[in-house]
Amino acid sequence: MEGKKELRFRCWIDIDGKRFFGPGRAQLLILIQKKGSLSKAAKEMGMSYRKAWAMVEDMNQRGQHPYVELYKGGSQGGGAELTETGQKVLSTFIKMNNEITATVQEHTDKILDLI
Amino acid sequence: MEGKKELRFRCWIDIDGKRFFGPGRAQLLILIQKKGSLSKAAKEMGMSYRKAWAMVEDMNQRGQHPYVELYKGGSQGGGAELTETGQKVLSTFIKMNNEITATVQEHTDKILDLI
Repeated sequence: MEGKKELRFRCWIDIDGKRFFGPGRAQLLILIQKKGSLSKAAKEMGMSYRKAWAMVEDMNQRGQHPYVELYKGGSQGGGAELTETGQKVLSTFIKMNNEITATVQEHTDKILDLI
Repeated sequence: MEGKKELRFRCWIDIDGKRFFGPGRAQLLILIQKKGSLSKAAKEMGMSYRKAWAMVEDMNQRGQHPYVELYKGGSQGGGAELTETGQKVLSTFIKMNNEITATVQEHTDKILDLI
């Protein structure tokens, strides 16, 4: 009966009951920040450019302010970077996730021993 | 663009990468404890008896010890109650969820204002 036990969590934000921002979008923003390119970020996530673009569009349209700025053309085929809002949302989300991780870790041994 | 924003979380336990225990099963255990009956607990959750029974069976078989004891027959058509393990798992899970809720609430205003 003894298998590999893991305590997991997920935290996300809904707007009007519809998923708006969670770990997947946070990861996309991290990669955009790192790569300076939406197509490279999408590739790194194993996601189509079309899908990554739709996620960025949704954040830019349903957020209070755009999260990502996309630059067209140029010799590098355009680029992408986080706006100030995008950076703040990302860093606040990461900070919160780290604190939840700490809370979860405090309970991990106790609960997994019981399970 | 301003809709109803909600910060949500979910915490659960996997065994060998497969969901084992989370908010749904915790709710089922709470109702078994309250009603003393699996069929009444299932009904309260809007779930078939068959599905609730399968959840109990999975907990009883994959857990280190059974979580729920089922009694057959009698004038009440059988009953169900939590074992000591079931009670401990449930109370530990609830306590952890309450602490995560507190951590999440500390961040709610800040993150939802930004979003």
